[in-house]
Amino acid sequence: MADASTRRRSRGGGGAARRAERTAVSFETAKYIERNIPNFEVLNEEALEVIETNAETVLEEIGVNFVENPAALARWREAGAEVEGERVRIPRGLARKLCATAPSQFTQHARNPEKSVVIGGRNLVLAPVYGPPFVRDAFGGRRYATMDDFKKFVKLAYMSKWLHHSGGTVCEPTDIPVNKRHLDMLSAHMTLSDKPFMGSVTDPSRAQDSVDMCGVLFGKEFVQDNTVMTSLVNINSPMTFDEVMMGALEVYATNNQACIVSPFIVGGAMAPVSVAGTLTQVLAEVMAGIAYSQLIRPGAPVIFGAFVTSIDMNSGAPTFGTPEASLITYGAGQLARRMGLPFRSAGSFCGSKLPDAQAAYETANSLNMGLLAGVNFMLHACGWLEGGLVADFEKFVMDADQLGALHGLAKGVNHDENGQAMDAIREVGPGGHYLGCAHTQANFKSAFWKTDLLDYKPFETWEEEGGRDTRMLASARVERLLSTYEQPALDPAIAEALAAFVDEKKASMPDAFM
Amino acid sequence: MADASTRRRSRGGGGAARRAERTAVSFETAKYIERNIPNFEVLNEEALEVIETNAETVLEEIGVNFVENPAALARWREAGAEVEGERVRIPRGLARKLCATAPSQFTQHARNPEKSVVIGGRNLVLAPVYGPPFVRDAFGGRRYATMDDFKKFVKLAYMSKWLHHSGGTVCEPTDIPVNKRHLDMLSAHMTLSDKPFMGSVTDPSRAQDSVDMCGVLFGKEFVQDNTVMTSLVNINSPMTFDEVMMGALEVYATNNQACIVSPFIVGGAMAPVSVAGTLTQVLAEVMAGIAYSQLIRPGAPVIFGAFVTSIDMNSGAPTFGTPEASLITYGAGQLARRMGLPFRSAGSFCGSKLPDAQAAYETANSLNMGLLAGVNFMLHACGWLEGGLVADFEKFVMDADQLGALHGLAKGVNHDENGQAMDAIREVGPGGHYLGCAHTQANFKSAFWKTDLLDYKPFETWEEEGGRDTRMLASARVERLLSTYEQPALDPAIAEALAAFVDEKKASMPDAFM
Repeated sequence: MADASTRRRSRGGGGAARRAERTAVSFETAKYIERNIPNFEVLNEEALEVIETNAETVLEEIGVNFVENPAALARWREAGAEVEGERVRIPRGLARKLCATAPSQFTQHARNPEKSVVIGGRNLVLAPVYGPPFVRDAFGGRRYATMDDFKKFVKLAYMSKWLHHSGGTVCEPTDIPVNKRHLDMLSAHMTLSDKPFMGSVTDPSRAQDSVDMCGVLFGKEFVQDNTVMTSLVNINSPMTFDEVMMGALEVYATNNQACIVSPFIVGGAMAPVSVAGTLTQVLAEVMAGIAYSQLIRPGAPVIFGAFVTSIDMNSGAPTFGTPEASLITYGAGQLARRMGLPFRSAGSFCGSKLPDAQAAYETANSLNMGLLAGVNFMLHACGWLEGGLVADFEKFVMDADQLGALHGLAKGVNHDENGQAMDAIREVGPGGHYLGCAHTQANFKSAFWKTDLLDYKPFETWEEEGGRDTRMLASARVERLLSTYEQPALDPAIAEALAAFVDEKKASMPDAFM
Repeated sequence: MADASTRRRSRGGGGAARRAERTAVSFETAKYIERNIPNFEVLNEEALEVIETNAETVLEEIGVNFVENPAALARWREAGAEVEGERVRIPRGLARKLCATAPSQFTQHARNPEKSVVIGGRNLVLAPVYGPPFVRDAFGGRRYATMDDFKKFVKLAYMSKWLHHSGGTVCEPTDIPVNKRHLDMLSAHMTLSDKPFMGSVTDPSRAQDSVDMCGVLFGKEFVQDNTVMTSLVNINSPMTFDEVMMGALEVYATNNQACIVSPFIVGGAMAPVSVAGTLTQVLAEVMAGIAYSQLIRPGAPVIFGAFVTSIDMNSGAPTFGTPEASLITYGAGQLARRMGLPFRSAGSFCGSKLPDAQAAYETANSLNMGLLAGVNFMLHACGWLEGGLVADFEKFVMDADQLGALHGLAKGVNHDENGQAMDAIREVGPGGHYLGCAHTQANFKSAFWKTDLLDYKPFETWEEEGGRDTRMLASARVERLLSTYEQPALDPAIAEALAAFVDEKKASMPDAFM
């Protein structure tokens, strides 16, 4: 495997590149989480087998629709499925057999090799919110997102210790034409951050642009041999695979780039109101989608996705951080592991309109559940607000701080001699205190997770300082981070080539806003 | 076992009692949680054995202090411990052997038999915050708690569907003399609610008053044969058992009333900074305390308690909802189950000064962890603020609403025919929606946990209604609940006897405020 950073340096060559790298400030990024705790599992063997059997029944009897995609229908027919109109009925066992060529884990390379991530196994990679058309902050209120907002979120993600991934559409830059935004978004991820990122899925041609831009950033040969993007391919639940998303998947799979194949389910609307029924549908949909990716290119990297939430049966609104969503996610993790596939689910989900207590309860419920469910790739891990309509600046840094707690929990319990601390217990004895003892002195710096945001000051101090709530503390942190941001070094030749690619592409087509 | 409510009716006799019961409004209370999900366990067999071995070493080599309690020292000496001054060294295996007579679960009777709770097994009983000297609400701010506040909290706990227990010192009524407040607090629990409650532990004589008042409420014979109080006995960690708490425990154990024997640990100050070291100390302390309860009366009901949090090493402030506290709680649950004892831990813990996002993250981390750790009795399950200094009215109903989510999660996954929902998947098919299908119609009312507080309205509606955050929604709920409160029926003869007991006791001693 080639070393991207070495090649990058040698390619652009010259003193400018070296100077740029030497003078850049480096912000600390934690390694992706490698769990040293078990997964939490809610389904027993009988329930797992019932769901797996039923999912095969769904694929065989009911089937799935591949919409406006004759090539996909032909591929399925050739693979042995029964195709009738756009309906694809997959004989029992075929989808699972096709899925077997998908890797159980894969490396997604970042342009900074230290920030490459391994997705799968016992790992958890955290990426920010994806898709909101609006942004919000404490002083500017709720408004349509712009490219300026987008860049700010990329910078915040770059500076967050606990985010391993720059994400994709952290918000929709609505001031840029729809058919050109992917170019600016990718350009921002590539130049303002050095973490791994996602490609465009809104049109097959934009997926191809994403691959081509990665060719500029990493070198074409490197991209042919390595995975440098993980992109989000939603299934239109129930059981519908549209031509846009499948078109993007076809481009990515062909190029050995990773896709999250992800049912998008508001339970009660796009799936049954029961947990087991929803899991059955999720499994059937994921198996069909991943099987299709392997028809495109056996061995293409994929992720078993499950975006699942429940519904408020009175208003029809989606609800977040609910117990039913947790049960489904725990179960989906089990199903993914039995297929030997990386698992994507959970996030900073909430329905609240503000980054208030409701938002935090809902988010914490979902984040904790995600860690314990064995999620390998958590999209939306920070910044999500109002059912995903809004990317919130304050909540972005609030959630990102909580992601540190997940890292701490995942460490599990060390019971070596230092962990046992018998010397400390002997030294202190009944009625003493541990603050000054040798064991505490030796271990206190790394013993406890440390927040960069939350307030632990005495009441009087806190009150004197203005009695600020979490949102106000977060607002100050957003401003501080953005004001100290420094761009990571990038070979100027590559930066120029990227800009030229974007300019050329933009000039080649008229603006489209729909 | 006698039926308390039958005897109560027959005792007070007369039409007044019957009329009172007939006209009372009944607020729905959920049955205590009976988990249908596994426990989450972070310690492997090797770690468990290391910790158990080390805890025996602590008891044998270092020992524990029983302070100003010659009778306790005599009991320990007789049981085979080595006593030197106030230090009690317990030979390997002795404490665990003594603990074996403690029951693995017990029933705590409420005066309304439908609200009696079984503590232990796979159950989880939820009780409100305990101990804050201050209260806070959105409009009155932070202030010393009074008896009026105390009564309001008892009413809110009575009206909360998801609280199974009325708790004890829901706040400190600082306007009542220290030596008399227990009488008013118990009286409030007994008359304003019909849920189970806790007794006083601030002096052995007050524990005896608690037992005597229960004799009035339940009938003396009933109290002799049954457990009607679960009270909180803290250990002064490290390894110190003071005469006040032990005096209360002696009274309760003698009378077959339950005690939570609970190390009170801010990690890094009262225990080592490591998880395994803290668990070692917790286990040693609990074993010593529970062994002592069984020396008083073999078979006395007890709970393995663990109040454990971490510390901000910069300021020395306790921190809440942290990953280290979670790991300790998961581990302590495993240790308690291996001893066959009910387990108390977790709660609505937070360090925040306001019921804001910080408070909710911290609380949700702790509540979720408590459910998954196998906690059987969760004190502080709602209303805790500012490290336990404050009982917050809005947070009380906010947290209480989240307790409903724990009930939902504990249900686990039903995979019977209705749960599988294959008919629904067949009926709807690819591209359809489930809102109107037969399975949804039949199941939607009970399919999803339903909040009584959180906002899921469309943005525009929410904004038109004032754009309220969670705290403001909660403030309105507090007011609505208190304005619709109705006292549960109580035989007037018992109410009079209770009032007479309190008056007589109060008249028998001068006020004390220290």
